[in-house]
This record gives sequence, C-alpha cells and structure tokens, in this order.
Amino acid sequence: MIKKDVNVLPDCRLNHIKKSICNLELKRTSIFYPLIHKKKKADEQSDPSAPKIILELIRYDRDQHMRHDNLTIDELFKEIDPRQVNWVNLDGLHDSTIIEKIQSHFCLHTLVVDDILGDQRPKAEEYEDYLFFTMKMLYRIDGVQIDYEQISFVLGANFLISFQEKEGDLFEGFRGRIKQDLGKVRKKQADYLLYRLLDIIIDSYYTVLDRIGDIIDEIEEDIHLNPSSRNFNRIQQLRKELIFLRRAVYPLRDALNKIIKGESVFVQEENLRYYSDIYDHVVHLTDSLDIYKDLSSSLLDIHMNTLNTRMNEVMKVLTVISTIFMPLTFIVGIYGMNFDNMPELHWHNGYYYVLGFMGVIAIIMLAFFKKKKWF
Amino acid sequence: MIKKDVNVLPDCRLNHIKKSICNLELKRTSIFYPLIHKKKKADEQSDPSAPKIILELIRYDRDQHMRHDNLTIDELFKEIDPRQVNWVNLDGLHDSTIIEKIQSHFCLHTLVVDDILGDQRPKAEEYEDYLFFTMKMLYRIDGVQIDYEQISFVLGANFLISFQEKEGDLFEGFRGRIKQDLGKVRKKQADYLLYRLLDIIIDSYYTVLDRIGDIIDEIEEDIHLNPSSRNFNRIQQLRKELIFLRRAVYPLRDALNKIIKGESVFVQEENLRYYSDIYDHVVHLTDSLDIYKDLSSSLLDIHMNTLNTRMNEVMKVLTVISTIFMPLTFIVGIYGMNFDNMPELHWHNGYYYVLGFMGVIAIIMLAFFKKKKWF
Amino acid sequence: MIKKDVNVLPDCRLNHIKKSICNLELKRTSIFYPLIHKKKKADEQSDPSAPKIILELIRYDRDQHMRHDNLTIDELFKEIDPRQVNWVNLDGLHDSTIIEKIQSHFCLHTLVVDDILGDQRPKAEEYEDYLFFTMKMLYRIDGVQIDYEQISFVLGANFLISFQEKEGDLFEGFRGRIKQDLGKVRKKQADYLLYRLLDIIIDSYYTVLDRIGDIIDEIEEDIHLNPSSRNFNRIQQLRKELIFLRRAVYPLRDALNKIIKGESVFVQEENLRYYSDIYDHVVHLTDSLDIYKDLSSSLLDIHMNTLNTRMNEVMKVLTVISTIFMPLTFIVGIYGMNFDNMPELHWHNGYYYVLGFMGVIAIIMLAFFKKKKWF
Amino acid sequence: MIKKDVNVLPDCRLNHIKKSICNLELKRTSIFYPLIHKKKKADEQSDPSAPKIILELIRYDRDQHMRHDNLTIDELFKEIDPRQVNWVNLDGLHDSTIIEKIQSHFCLHTLVVDDILGDQRPKAEEYEDYLFFTMKMLYRIDGVQIDYEQISFVLGANFLISFQEKEGDLFEGFRGRIKQDLGKVRKKQADYLLYRLLDIIIDSYYTVLDRIGDIIDEIEEDIHLNPSSRNFNRIQQLRKELIFLRRAVYPLRDALNKIIKGESVFVQEENLRYYSDIYDHVVHLTDSLDIYKDLSSSLLDIHMNTLNTRMNEVMKVLTVISTIFMPLTFIVGIYGMNFDNMPELHWHNGYYYVLGFMGVIAIIMLAFFKKKKWF
Amino acid sequence: MIKKDVNVLPDCRLNHIKKSICNLELKRTSIFYPLIHKKKKADEQSDPSAPKIILELIRYDRDQHMRHDNLTIDELFKEIDPRQVNWVNLDGLHDSTIIEKIQSHFCLHTLVVDDILGDQRPKAEEYEDYLFFTMKMLYRIDGVQIDYEQISFVLGANFLISFQEKEGDLFEGFRGRIKQDLGKVRKKQADYLLYRLLDIIIDSYYTVLDRIGDIIDEIEEDIHLNPSSRNFNRIQQLRKELIFLRRAVYPLRDALNKIIKGESVFVQEENLRYYSDIYDHVVHLTDSLDIYKDLSSSLLDIHMNTLNTRMNEVMKVLTVISTIFMPLTFIVGIYGMNFDNMPELHWHNGYYYVLGFMGVIAIIMLAFFKKKKWF
Repeated sequence: MIKKDVNVLPDCRLNHIKKSICNLELKRTSIFYPLIHKKKKADEQSDPSAPKIILELIRYDRDQHMRHDNLTIDELFKEIDPRQVNWVNLDGLHDSTIIEKIQSHFCLHTLVVDDILGDQRPKAEEYEDYLFFTMKMLYRIDGVQIDYEQISFVLGANFLISFQEKEGDLFEGFRGRIKQDLGKVRKKQADYLLYRLLDIIIDSYYTVLDRIGDIIDEIEEDIHLNPSSRNFNRIQQLRKELIFLRRAVYPLRDALNKIIKGESVFVQEENLRYYSDIYDHVVHLTDSLDIYKDLSSSLLDIHMNTLNTRMNEVMKVLTVISTIFMPLTFIVGIYGMNFDNMPELHWHNGYYYVLGFMGVIAIIMLAFFKKKKWF
Repeated sequence: MIKKDVNVLPDCRLNHIKKSICNLELKRTSIFYPLIHKKKKADEQSDPSAPKIILELIRYDRDQHMRHDNLTIDELFKEIDPRQVNWVNLDGLHDSTIIEKIQSHFCLHTLVVDDILGDQRPKAEEYEDYLFFTMKMLYRIDGVQIDYEQISFVLGANFLISFQEKEGDLFEGFRGRIKQDLGKVRKKQADYLLYRLLDIIIDSYYTVLDRIGDIIDEIEEDIHLNPSSRNFNRIQQLRKELIFLRRAVYPLRDALNKIIKGESVFVQEENLRYYSDIYDHVVHLTDSLDIYKDLSSSLLDIHMNTLNTRMNEVMKVLTVISTIFMPLTFIVGIYGMNFDNMPELHWHNGYYYVLGFMGVIAIIMLAFFKKKKWF
Repeated sequence: MIKKDVNVLPDCRLNHIKKSICNLELKRTSIFYPLIHKKKKADEQSDPSAPKIILELIRYDRDQHMRHDNLTIDELFKEIDPRQVNWVNLDGLHDSTIIEKIQSHFCLHTLVVDDILGDQRPKAEEYEDYLFFTMKMLYRIDGVQIDYEQISFVLGANFLISFQEKEGDLFEGFRGRIKQDLGKVRKKQADYLLYRLLDIIIDSYYTVLDRIGDIIDEIEEDIHLNPSSRNFNRIQQLRKELIFLRRAVYPLRDALNKIIKGESVFVQEENLRYYSDIYDHVVHLTDSLDIYKDLSSSLLDIHMNTLNTRMNEVMKVLTVISTIFMPLTFIVGIYGMNFDNMPELHWHNGYYYVLGFMGVIAIIMLAFFKKKKWF
Repeated sequence: MIKKDVNVLPDCRLNHIKKSICNLELKRTSIFYPLIHKKKKADEQSDPSAPKIILELIRYDRDQHMRHDNLTIDELFKEIDPRQVNWVNLDGLHDSTIIEKIQSHFCLHTLVVDDILGDQRPKAEEYEDYLFFTMKMLYRIDGVQIDYEQISFVLGANFLISFQEKEGDLFEGFRGRIKQDLGKVRKKQADYLLYRLLDIIIDSYYTVLDRIGDIIDEIEEDIHLNPSSRNFNRIQQLRKELIFLRRAVYPLRDALNKIIKGESVFVQEENLRYYSDIYDHVVHLTDSLDIYKDLSSSLLDIHMNTLNTRMNEVMKVLTVISTIFMPLTFIVGIYGMNFDNMPELHWHNGYYYVLGFMGVIAIIMLAFFKKKKWF
Repeated sequence: MIKKDVNVLPDCRLNHIKKSICNLELKRTSIFYPLIHKKKKADEQSDPSAPKIILELIRYDRDQHMRHDNLTIDELFKEIDPRQVNWVNLDGLHDSTIIEKIQSHFCLHTLVVDDILGDQRPKAEEYEDYLFFTMKMLYRIDGVQIDYEQISFVLGANFLISFQEKEGDLFEGFRGRIKQDLGKVRKKQADYLLYRLLDIIIDSYYTVLDRIGDIIDEIEEDIHLNPSSRNFNRIQQLRKELIFLRRAVYPLRDALNKIIKGESVFVQEENLRYYSDIYDHVVHLTDSLDIYKDLSSSLLDIHMNTLNTRMNEVMKVLTVISTIFMPLTFIVGIYGMNFDNMPELHWHNGYYYVLGFMGVIAIIMLAFFKKKKWF
C-alpha cells in the first residue's frame, strides 16, 4: 500500500535534524571496480573535454504533460510538482556537483550514490524514502560488440530518477508515447513508469540474445566443413560474451523477485503483475543463456571432432602412401645393388617380372586398405 | 473450493466500471522472442493467405453434449451456456480481431494475451477470474524432426479456452470420447477437462522421448564399428533436441506444482490427485531426459574413443611398415654404392647372404612388434 | 496413530454411494512408458501362453499363521480376516480381471492401478484408505546383467498387498521366518511387515552394487596394461548400469522421507525408526553410486591416458627409426650416383670410411634420443 | 537441559515391561556392506585366532579417577557408578556375547547395534535413553595408505560407550590428561568427554589431509618435466583417496549440525559451543577436500598437456627430418639412374654442383622451420 | 539494540565466580592446520629472533582522539576508557603471554583464542560479551604472488580488538582520517569502526582481483600465437590462485550475512546498511571469481586447441612431403636397377621423359592437396 497524501520531497528536506546523517561523503575513488567499463572509468574523471551532463524532467498526470530539457539542476528542482509524476533523467555521471545536489535534495544515502557511480551487480534495495534499482543496459555496436551501460533508478512516491552513464538511451520512442498519451502510462503512477522503462531495457536484451543465436547458427553451418582457428575464436568470443551476459542477467532475477514479493511500499499491489511479467521474461532470458551456453559447448565439441577427424584422415593418407611405396622402393633398391652374382638381373624378362610383382603388391595393399575402409 | 452458483462470464462483462482496466493494448510486436518458432512468427503477421482461424465450441454436462464448428466469434459467445462445461478451442492466433473479442468477452489481462501470442516458457498463473496455463505441444514430423507448438489454456469456473498456434491437435480421439460419454469427463467440471487435455499432451511427450531412445540405441550399435562424422552429427543433433526438450519440460514441473499445492480456486480439491499424477509423469520425463543426456554424452565418449583407437591403429601400421623397411632399404642402398673397393660385392653368394641377413632383420622386427602386441 | 477397531475392508465396500467414484476405467494402454521393460510390456498383453498369475495370502497374528496358495481371487477375499495381518501377494499383472477385482474390493484409486501396471519412478503416496508404495526390485542374472522388476505395495490398516510383475521374488526365506515366528514380525502389524519386505529388497541392492565394485576392481587391474576396446566397452556398460541404478535408487530417498516424517497414519510411530533405518541404507546406497560413478570416470581417464601414452610411444619409435635411417639412406644414395667424377669412389678405403662415418652418425643420433629420454 | 537426578542405567533395566521390545535379534549377517573394510569383515567372523576383545572402564569426577582394564563385562557393569562419568571403551566387535550383554544392559535398540557392527556413514541419532554417534577414525599406515576404522559412541546421561573395530586408538595421550586432571574434562560431564574424543579424531584427519597436500606438491614439482605413467597413477590413487575421504567427512557435517541445533538432551547447552567448534573444523576439512580435488584435477590437466606437448615435439622432429632428407634422397636417386643419356653425369663438376644444390635445399628447409619456430 | 550504559570491560573481570570457566588452556599446538601459512607457522613458534609484537591503542570520541604506540599490555589496559571507542591493535601473535593477558582481561573464550591463533575459514560468531569476526587480509607481493594474512576482530560494546599475524597493514591512511576527524567515524561507535576496517580490506581484494584480470588479458593476447608451456603454466598458476581466493572469499558471504540479519547486539541497526554494502561487494567479488574461473578454463581450451591445430599443421606438412617424394623416389629407384634388359634406359630422351613424368606426378599431387585445402 502506498501512503496517500505524500509529498514528493522526502521529509529529510523539511526535517533538518536528520540532515546530519544525510552527509555527502563520496567514496567514489576509494573502490576499484574491476572488469567491465575499466576504460570508461578513466575517461570519467573530471575530464575537461567531457560531454555536458544532460538533465531532463518529464512531468505528467492524466491531463497534463511537460518536458524540460537543458535545465540547470536548481531550476529543475523548482519545476518538480509533487502532485504529478516527475521523471528526472540524468545522462552522464562525471559532474560531482550535480550528483551531490541531487543527493542532498532527495536525501539519497551515501551508499546509494556509491552504487550509482560505481560498477554494481543488478539489485533492488528498499530505503525509507525510495526504492533503489540498478541494472545494466545493453547496446550492440555494429552488430558485433556488446556495450554495457549501468542505469540506476530511484523510485519515490511521486518521482522517478534515472541515472545513466552516457548520453543516449532506448527510451526515445517511449517519451513520445507518454506525450501522446498512448498506453496506460499517463493514468498510472511512477511505479508503472519504472515498469515500462525496465520492460524496454529487457526487450533490448532479447535483441542482443537473438544476434547471438544467429551467430551460433552461422558458425554451426560453417564448422562442420571448416574447423578453422577463426571459427574457434568466434566460439570463444561468444562464450566470453555469454559469461558477461549471465552476470548482467542472473542477479536481475533476485532483484525483481524482491519487488514481486510485495516487499516495497513504492510499488502498488495492482502493478505487481507487471513486474511479475518482467520477471518471467528475465527467467526466459536466463533459460536462453543456458541453452546458448550448451549450444556453444556443442560447437566446441564439433570443432574438436572435425579437427580430429581431419587429423585421422591425414594420417591415413600418410600411412597408405608409406605402406605402398616403402616395400616397392625396397624392391627396386634390391635390384639396384651391384653384386657380381645376381642371376635375376640377367633374366631376359627380369625387369618385367619385377614390375609385375610390384604391381601385385600394390594391388594387395590397396585391397587391404579398402577392406579396412581407410578410403 | 469452487464458488457455487457462479456465472460462466467473468463479472467484468457485467461490471462496466472495471472495463477501463481490461483494455486491449496488444504489446505483441514490441517483444522479440528468440529461438523457437522464429520462422513461424514471420508467417503469422497478417498474411492474406494465412489459413482461416478455426473456432470450435464443445458444450456438455451429464446429460447433454453439443459441438459447434465454424461459428463466428460472436455466434460462439451466444452459444456459451453458464450451466454447462464450455470448451472453446481456437486454432490459429493470427487474427487479432478475434483475439481482442475473446479478451474483452472473458476480460483477459493484457499480459495473458501477450503470453498467449508470444513464445513463453510453460507456466501457470492464477488471475481473479481464471487460471492461465501455457505449455508446448510436441509433434514428431516424419519420425525425425520435432515440431513445437505453443498451447495456452484459460480455465474459468465453467469454461476452458484453449489457444493453439496451428490447425490440428492431439485431441480428436478425446472429442469422440466426450461425445460418447466414455470415462468420467462428462460427470466432471472444466478442471477435469483441462487435466485430460494436459494428460494427452504429456502422453505425446513419451512418444517423442521414446523415438529418441530408439535413435540412441541405433547409434550405439553402429558407433563402435563406425566412428563416422554422420554418427557424430546425429549425436550432436540429438543433444540439441534434448536441450530444447528440457526447456519445454522442466518449467512444467513448477507450473504443475503451483496447481497441486491447491493454490487455485479453479481446480477442485478432489481433482488435485489427477494433476499430481501428471506431475509425476513430468518428473518421470525429466528423469528420462537426464538419462538420455547422460547416454548421449556416453555416445560422444565412445565416438571419441573409437576415433582415437583407430588413429592408434593407423599409427601402428605406419610405424611397423617404416621400422621394417627403412633399415632394409638402407642395406640395399649400401650395396648399390659404386665404390671401387667393396669386397662383399664380389663374393659369390654375397647377394644371397644379404637377402638372408635382411630376412633375419625383418623377422626380428616382427617378433619385437608381436611382443609389444602391436598387431 | 492408527485408528483402533478398524475394519480391514475400506469403507467403500460398505458404502455404496462412494462406489461410483471408485470406477474401473483402466488407462493402461494409453500411456507409453519408455526405457526399461519395453520388451516385457509386449509380452504382457494378454498373451494366451502367459504364465498363470500366482495369488497368495499369508495371514497371521501372535498366535496363528495361515498360508494359502493357488486360491482364486474370490476365495482369497473370503479368507481375509480383519483381526489379523493379511498379506496378499500377486505375481504377474497381465490378468486385468483379477486386478479389477482387487481394485474394486480394496477400492483402489484408478491412478494407483495405473501406477501398479505401468513403469513408475519409486514413490510413496498416501490415500484415504491406504498407503501406496512402489519401487524397483533388482536381480542380477548370470552375475552380469541387471534385471529390474517393479514391485508395488498397498498398505492398509490390517492388510498389505504386494504386486509383482513376474513370478519369483526375494521373500521366500522371510516367509519361513514368519511361519516359525522368528524375529518380531508376528508381534507387529502390517506396517512392520512392509518394513521387512522393503529391507530385504534394499539388501539385494547391496549385492548388485557389490558386483559392480568387483567389476571396477577387475577393470582397474587390467586397464593400466591393456587399454583395449573391450575394457572401454565394459566401462561404458558399467556407466550405463549406474545411470539406470541411480534412477531406481534416488527417488526412493524422497519416498521414504515422506513416510519417516510421520505423515502416514498407516505407519505407527514406534516403527518409524525402522523406516528411518532403511532410509539410511538408501542414502548409503546413493553415496556408493556416486563413488562408483567417480571411480568409473576415473577408469575412463586411465584408459584415455594409457591410449595416449601408447600413441606417444609408437610415435617415438617411428621418429627414432626415421631419424636414424633417413640420413644414412641419403648418404648411401650419394655414393650410388653415377657421376663420372666422384673421387671418393676411387679411394681404396672409401667404402670403409663411409661405413665408419655412418656408424658415427647413428651413435650420435642414439645419444641424442637417449638424452631426450625417448627410450 | 539435562534431566537432574538421573540414574546412569536406562530405565529399561528397572522396568521389565519394556524389556520385550529391547530384544536381541542381531541382524548382522543379513546386510552386506560394500566397499571399505570388506576383507576385515571376513576376518571378524568368529575367528578362533581373533585377538581378545579389550574392555576398559574409566570413571571420574572432580575428585576421583579410576581406570579398570581387563575386566569381564559383568565385573565392568558392577563398577559403573551413576554419580560419576563412566567411559566404557570396547576394542574389537567380533564377540557377540559381549555386544549382546552391553545391548541388554544399556537397552540399546537393535538398529543401533546393527549400525555399530556394520559399515555406516557417519551420523548422529537421538534415542530416548542415549545419543548415538558413529564416524570413521583414520590412520595413515607407513605414511602412504589410509586405514579406516569405524568408531561408534553411545552417550547417556552419565556414561559414554565407545565401540572400536580394532585394538589401538588415538586417545592414549588424552587418557593421561584425564588422570592428571589437565584441562576441563574432569570438571565436566560425559558430553564434554565425547567432544574431546571427537576433537582428537578430527585433528587426526588434518594429519591425513596434510600428507595429501604434500604428495600433491611433490607430484606437481615432478610432473612438468616428467609426464610418466607413475605420476599419472599416483594422481589417480590420490583422487581415489579423496573420493573415500569425502565420503567419511561430508556426512559428519550433518551429524554435528544435528547436535549443534540443540536437539539433543544429552548435550548441555553450555557445551554446544565446543561441538560448534568441531563443526567448523569439519567444514574446514570439506573445504580442503574440495581444494585438493581441484588441485588434483589440475595435475591431470598438467599431465595431459605435458604429454601432448611432448607428442607435438616428437612429431616436429620427425617432420623436420623427413622434410629435409626426402627431397635430398630423391635427388641422389635421380643421379643413380642408369639412363644412357644423362648429360649431367659427365660434367666434370657435376658431383659438386649436386652436393652444393642439395646443401642449398637443406639450408632453405632449415630456415623455413626456423621461421615457423619448430625448433 | 545495544545495551546502554554498558561498561567496556566484560563483567567477567568484575565477577570472579565466572573466572573459572574463562580458563586459559591454549590448544594451539594440538591442531595442525594444513595448506596456507604452513611455513609461517613454523617461524612463529617462540623464535628468539621473532620481531617484537606491536601493541597499539587508538581511543576516540566526537571530541577527543588519542593514539598510544609501544605500550606494554598492562599499561594499555589502564589506558582503556569505557566512555570512548577503544581500538586495540596487535601485530604478531607469537607471544603467548600477551595473548593470555588479553584473553583474561576481555574474558575471551578458549575457542576464540584458538581461532585467532590458528588458520581459520572466515566466520562471524556471537558470544555473550563480544562479536568475533575472522577473515583473510590479502597483499600482492611484487605484483605477482598473493600473500594471505589472517586478521581477527573482537567487537565489544565500546571496544574493538584486531589481531594481525604480521606487522604492517592496510589501515595507515585510515588512522590519519580518524585523527583528522574525516568522515563519520568519530561520530559513530565501535561497530562502524569495524565496518570501515572490513571495507578497507575488501577494497584491497579488488586490487588483487584486478591484477588477475590483467594477467588473463595478457595471456589471452599471447596464447593464440604461442601455445608455449610457459603460458600453460601461467594459466595453471592462475587457476590455483583462484582456488585459494575462492576459499578466502566465499565463506565471507555467510559470515557477513549472519551480521546483516541483525542477529548481533553489537552492531546497531542503523549501521546494518553498511555491512549490507560490504556484503554486496563480497557477492560482486564471488561473481568476479566465477567469471575469472570460466575465463581461465576458456584459456585452457584455447591453449589445447592451438596445440592441436599446430599438430595438425605439422602432420599435414609431413604427409604432403612424404606423398610427393615417396612415389618419385620409387620411380628413380626403378631406373637405378641394374637389369640387363631395360629398354627405357637406352631411349635417347628416356631421362627427360622420366623427369617430365615425375614433374607431372608432383603437380597432380600438389593440385590434390590444394583441393583438400591442406595448405
């Protein structure tokens, strides 16, 4: 149940006693986050040529809709209207002044800010004044490489703040739908808005996974004939991608499960079904990831087997050739010896007898290999 | 316990206030479902040459039985009688008008319609007015390839709606049994009807699995002698099929478990035993899948081993031949040299001595390999 | 707690109203059970030459003991005495008349009869009037092959019915013990009788497992020296047996656990300890199966390694021979050329110099391989 | 909580009504226990030359300490003093008279006696009058082979009985500590005594594990250079030992967990910490076993890789030699032909030209292989 | 909830009755801890040249801060002020006098002291007077080898004792922050101090993990081209490190989970969020460890595949060379025979015909291999 008559601003703004707890100690540089985004981190650090942070406010209810771009953070705070749904979107996290202002305005916990700024595994966390949700947004660059961007949400009673690491997102079409009042979003609260955004992100996961499925099909068609290192490396690349994807998708299950179980006061019970639907999609995704993992293992098996079969074939050729020509070469060697007394050499048809004898040997050998099904 | 005196039509038909929630926003095209059915999807999109949707209503109680084919959807709604069991069957999901009418008539949740239209993992979901169940139906085409078709059920107090993607199903014989009042089905409610349909589908899984068992036996008999790429590819094909089958069968366990635990008001307690029986069959199926997976791994091991053993044998032949003929060829080479002073060449029996010497070497070599058990 | 003063006949015999539920619809042919027993199924189908079904009743209490063989089913029903423990044993399930009579007499649920007739994973199920338990009985034929027979038990207040697929069982010695009043069985109720039968069956599992342990030992002793295909096939055979055994043993844990937890009214609390003891044995068995699985994997590793080591050895022989004789053959080839001007040919000791030179090369080569530890 | 004022003798001694239940039916020969100790079992069976059973009673409280060796079982019973802690130790289980007397004196359940005599997985079981605990005691013989001995404990209110299969144990030092009143044992009850004995046994597990760690280190140092069959067999031996050790250690966790959860009335709450400490050690042991398992797998990988690398090297030598000498031998073969018209043969420096040409070919070949980094 | 008005000294100091339980029996030498730290243990044992134990007390509240180095243990006890937060840090555990004094002063349980002195898996344990926490601190030496040091904490109402095995830690910078009153630490109690120390240690894990990630990248770049034993050994080394790291990190999850669940009275509820944050980091670490494990397996696959591909290539070269030159050598052998009657030898252009014939054969062979894509 959601508290009625709630003010969009957390009470910490009004209640200055609690202010001391809500301190701004940013721990950002003290933790080193490995793996993903390493290079991006480097760029972030107060680079003078860093792109401007984009601040955006979309405010709506059943009757009204307002979109503000390019406001300063202070102007934006003034535009927030507690009687409407307020969606604050932030692209770029490298300006600590803005982050700090948002933190103090919405009274975000130090740890939440740490989580927004650092690389986190997907999770949902309930605080007194808001629900915090963080996950990865995926892009496929040039149809080959996957780019991960962390997106965090802070869902309050009447507001939703979304923090993105970089400019550009998947929501542009959806912003249009809000404006034109398509679908149910204008009739619902901020929790439904969050659902729609999560849904759009999860849908993009399918696109990424689908491309992987296509690549697996492509490799499979090629690999039976062509056990090249190129195909092997593509499989390895694929497996690596699956490892990272799994890391982005699996923890989502737990995060969404937390919400579905109705633990959060910020998600209305009638909307739990929608979150449950996203949860089903995520389970579907994890199933697909498992299948792709099995299929890629299978590709490796096929690769190894083709390699082995080739080797076998090569060895057979070598052995057949050696087995036929070694005895023959030995025989011609015999009659190349220079002994004084070698009667066969003086037979009139000795040469032809030997040729014939060697022909017989060769035919016997070939018959032997034929019987062994070596070719 | 089932609510007595319940009207077959969900109250949303009567209660127009709730109507606004029951909106028809079809999200169908916004989600991309990977893997299975990809090609089918393409065909579905309002193809003018698409086969007609088949609508069918079977209505019965202890005394009466009525079957309507080829009704329009509006005629069908009129034929529904809340005092009897009404089985509405729909073959083909590509006509969104019909789907929308069914949705609004039975007040199906938007998410349910999404699930019916899209590729879903098997699941059971309880809504206020009905129980939703979706699973895969399997056909074996030409005894080789498995075809998956999604089938969804909506079970209400006195009605059952079944949604199939394509014309043709496994229920024809069962329709006859209903008509002739065989078995208990005419004495029971819609929940028993659902049980019987599920049971028939699960039985067809056994047929599919059994064919896999036969293929495994066939391959096993052949593979010890013939480690061909063809057998290897058949094993890989098999493993792929098992991966997809597992995906269709495993989630069924959870879905049925939900029902067995008596959570649903639409399944009467006295019929839980039957669902429990289907559950046992599904567990039996998952056991079989696990066994087949182990057996197919075992086949791969056998294949690899036979390949290796062959390789070993080939190498032995090569080595035996080389080891015998290389020294001999060397010896005849010696007596093919043109040195002025090579006394052996002038011995009267030199040639025979050399032949004899070479014979001895060959015999020693053969004895050596015999001792090493190389042939 | 067991209900006192209970009549051996389920009340459905007395209460004809419930009779309609207890109908006899046998679903036996509609389900196809894969894997085990396939051929046996074929034989079962009302074959005129099928062996007679054996019906047997053992009835006892502290003071009395009576054993009836070769009764007809109707005579047998009359002999049942509700004040004593009645053990009805049935060997052979191919006569549906008898099964139907038993079903209607003891009012067995249709699903129970299906489970008795069809191939089932081991399970325990509590019904209103009885506890149903089904499992596999194992025989080792000729010390090599394992034969599985399904045995099912129906345990009521004062009766136990055992259904066996074939004539012959493991209980003959135990029947003697009952007659001679050895052990506690005559002092206890039907639930203790069931315990004793289960215990005897589980004991026979140990015999089967023990033979597997011996085979593993045998193979292990042989395989280090002899990586033959025969040993490989024996290992594969073993692994297959373990796969099937696991299927028979693992579900037993859950089935027994259900009983131990005291859920059943048909097992007295003071006897739960005994079932708990069987449970411990089954866990012990699963441990052993896991160990045997690990050991057989280990055997495969040994086999592969021996094969690889052999290959390595073969390659070394080939390489040593080639590396020694190829240069030598080249040298003798040089002096077999027919150039007019080859001064060495005319040296008096040229031949001996060349022989000596070749000897030196051979020795150097051998020393090189010795150093590389190739032999 | 432990019942105060409790008599050391279970009430079954006093209460002859219950006596009938406490019967002596020994089931020992009816169960066959596979795997471990098979041969030992054979020896046990009433061998006339079997070593005498050793009976020992240690009785103490804060003030007094008494140790009796070589008592008969009846004398021993008389010496038991319910006001003190009585530790009865039995080495050797082959005398069924003694076992039966102990069983009837302490009223042990038939199943407990079965468990003491047969091979059991470690477990704890609470009975009305005592707590039963059984586990394996490990000895390392000659620093190589592990010997398993089953030890069982029966812990009552004021007594502890320990059953060992063979003479000799790990407790001799501890018996001295009791006598000299070192540590807390004299101030505590029988449950603390059991803790101390378990602790000593678990400590000995560390010694065994430590030796395995040393062996792994030894093999690892050797295996990179020397992929011999001997090392491979040592690894396999190790893996086998780890399989058996795991079987002895893993179930201990569950057994101890049962006690820690405070389910037993025979362990005082203030001593649970000590059992919890043993539990931690056992978890530590299982961790170590898992690590050793991973390390031994890693050793196998290293072995296989070294073998493969060797093979590769061998093949390269063969190929280099063949590739250099085959063309050369062919060339000298050409000039060994006996055609009448071969102008090169008559050139004055033809021989030297050919030698030079062959030298160039050899150098080119070597350069080619050098570039390919084949040596 | 934390007990107000609590004295920093556990009541055992005041209450001499309990003293008897708090005995000093050190079990240190009786348990042998395998694996890690084995050599260090040896050094520890009362080595006269052992480095001096470092004792340090930091005492602070909102207003005051005091740091004492080089106090004797008795002086230190006097400096402890129950109204402030007292952080006692001990570097070096080899002086049993000091340990015993600390044990008796803070009334530590014998088992706690055992755990501090011995090698333990990370764990948290709640005692009546304090919370005990032990874990591993990691250092990377020379950027290559990981050094493990066990650190244990005893958290009481107003004090925190940290036990380190060696001089030097990661906290020097943090000591400065306390002094300068940076962050919240001076405003909080001892539980926050513990959180900060744990956080610093966990952060250092990231540094260690990051280095592993770099090494994996390095190896991956190199291994495709260069399947050397060196790379293989680096991968094995890596896998070994991951095995040990997993052992240090995984149990931390359980330990922290115990605290988060609010079971401890020594951690205030408002600080649970911080511990929850560390927990998230540890889960993140375990995820990373799993990923690194998968990646290192992948590296092994790449290594094996490159090795196999190389082998394949080598075999092809050998086979091509043999297949071309064996038939040619045979042909020249024929015309090197000394038969009297070999007409071809006397043809005027016989020599050239043969050369041409051999050229044709060579070209056909090459074309054949080209078609087979062998080079």
